[in-house]
Amino acid sequence: MKKMVLGIDIGGTFTKIGLVDRNGNIKGTKVFSTGSKGPYTDFISTLKKELDLLLGMDRNTCEIMAVGIGAPNSNMHTGQMEDAPNFDWGPRVPLQKSIADICGLPTTIANDANAAALGELVFGMAKGMKNFVVLTLGTGLGSGIIIDGRLLTGHNGMAGELGHVNVDPYGRKCNCGLRGCLENYASVTGLKRTVFELISEMKEDSPLKRLSFEALTGEMISEAANAGDAIALKAFQFTGEVLGRKLEDTAAHLDPEAYILAGGLGKAGKLLLKPTVDSMEKNLFVAYRGKIKVAISTAASSILGPAALAMQSLEGHHS
Amino acid sequence: MKKMVLGIDIGGTFTKIGLVDRNGNIKGTKVFSTGSKGPYTDFISTLKKELDLLLGMDRNTCEIMAVGIGAPNSNMHTGQMEDAPNFDWGPRVPLQKSIADICGLPTTIANDANAAALGELVFGMAKGMKNFVVLTLGTGLGSGIIIDGRLLTGHNGMAGELGHVNVDPYGRKCNCGLRGCLENYASVTGLKRTVFELISEMKEDSPLKRLSFEALTGEMISEAANAGDAIALKAFQFTGEVLGRKLEDTAAHLDPEAYILAGGLGKAGKLLLKPTVDSMEKNLFVAYRGKIKVAISTAASSILGPAALAMQSLEGHHS
Repeated sequence: MKKMVLGIDIGGTFTKIGLVDRNGNIKGTKVFSTGSKGPYTDFISTLKKELDLLLGMDRNTCEIMAVGIGAPNSNMHTGQMEDAPNFDWGPRVPLQKSIADICGLPTTIANDANAAALGELVFGMAKGMKNFVVLTLGTGLGSGIIIDGRLLTGHNGMAGELGHVNVDPYGRKCNCGLRGCLENYASVTGLKRTVFELISEMKEDSPLKRLSFEALTGEMISEAANAGDAIALKAFQFTGEVLGRKLEDTAAHLDPEAYILAGGLGKAGKLLLKPTVDSMEKNLFVAYRGKIKVAISTAASSILGPAALAMQSLEGHHS
Repeated sequence: MKKMVLGIDIGGTFTKIGLVDRNGNIKGTKVFSTGSKGPYTDFISTLKKELDLLLGMDRNTCEIMAVGIGAPNSNMHTGQMEDAPNFDWGPRVPLQKSIADICGLPTTIANDANAAALGELVFGMAKGMKNFVVLTLGTGLGSGIIIDGRLLTGHNGMAGELGHVNVDPYGRKCNCGLRGCLENYASVTGLKRTVFELISEMKEDSPLKRLSFEALTGEMISEAANAGDAIALKAFQFTGEVLGRKLEDTAAHLDPEAYILAGGLGKAGKLLLKPTVDSMEKNLFVAYRGKIKVAISTAASSILGPAALAMQSLEGHHS
């Protein structure tokens, strides 16, 4: 029987589950609404049903060795999802325990961005690398740091919160209560806020001026930029400048081999990559200049992160 | 025979050598002028003589197991001192090889601040800790990062250059060619620059106004602050505010258990510690608030860092 792991990616809107083999081949996935605003017990019973459906298909052809869970604000040390802003499941959700009980298998949990970093390490473009950082640029900014081939978890299991390094102590208000945290600039939401700031300043005509903040998406801004829209282009320029400057600070901590940009904003490709790399190189301490790769993630599925977590737990590699 | 290691601390002005036992007891030290502006071969022959004197004393009472070297801008991966600004010994100085050849013993080298971090881990106040950062606040700002009980070296052996995280992209000029690097604010030199900036702005009388920049020392500023001098007090306040803000960024990377402040500026004690902790806590992301110790190093000698490096090499603990 083929040996596989089960990856569970829990998002604020959708949850994805899937079986993955040692080479990162995904064999069967299921997607369902997380119901993050409903009761936690409903989520668990839905998950149980969906797992039965997924596993039923393959019960006789594969053996599942371990389970990995990626979820927002989840702590590897405690096994809980803690104070997740988009979930109404309570302040401390025992996801690891609940899911281990359902599955009866070794189960590991990590913050979704930490899981994504392991996904790049085990199955993705960071195979063979030992020191790198993954930034997931979506609604917010998540990050996962790999040091000497292992996930950095820190003293309280909370390392790698690069969404909350400071860009400007008098800057944009953040969900966390502070001002100027990086995720208010370098994320899809941050890009939208930049577009609206630029609309307030610039006189150029732009299709973006005909959209509400709620209606505006990252794709629309990319599309406008690709069509030469001055506001959209300047918004990417500014986003890359801010992100590049903070990647300098991260280099001065970690001396990484690479940065991998993932998440919705990563889809903008060169529009984001060029100003980010230009700004980073301009601001880098001399010892790091020209030495750090910056790339857009090519990961096929958000299942690969949690699956990598499960895979590593089998090998006893995570710290 | 008692088993010991040899620690060699090479500074821009003085070099200190000493024997250290497993418990951090220092048995015999020697200090001599480094001669950093003279030829490298002179340094090596002086070192050889001083080692003979030091070891001659103890030849029959102890067995030396390994040698550890701490020196500015030194790279553990290459074994060299690289582009050290205060040394005229060439761009790449093969310190590890030269000293291993003299001593005929396993020899390890590290950046002085990295060695200091190991010193705190093995012999100092960080015994038993697994994740912490040492900042040496002297002429410049050096740092050493310990992750899971091991020194973080990074992809090129250059991790932990926190002197060059950015405070203000339009800020003070740095030796490295950039502007606004942290060491131009949080170091003895940075404190002096702040005093001179404040003298340019403030009307209060102060004994500091009777001193040239060259004549001013960190001790004088501490003394003035302890006597209630407004400019000196404000200088420490500002230094702590800047340092505390950047310690927030470091927390968001590493989730450390503690920061240990060492070097000349550390001697200011509470004058530095209070504004630093206040600023750090005010700026910390919620997950870290109230969880990070900040303390002034109590290390007895700069020999302990290199000695710890030698000790760890014996145990195969460094990465």
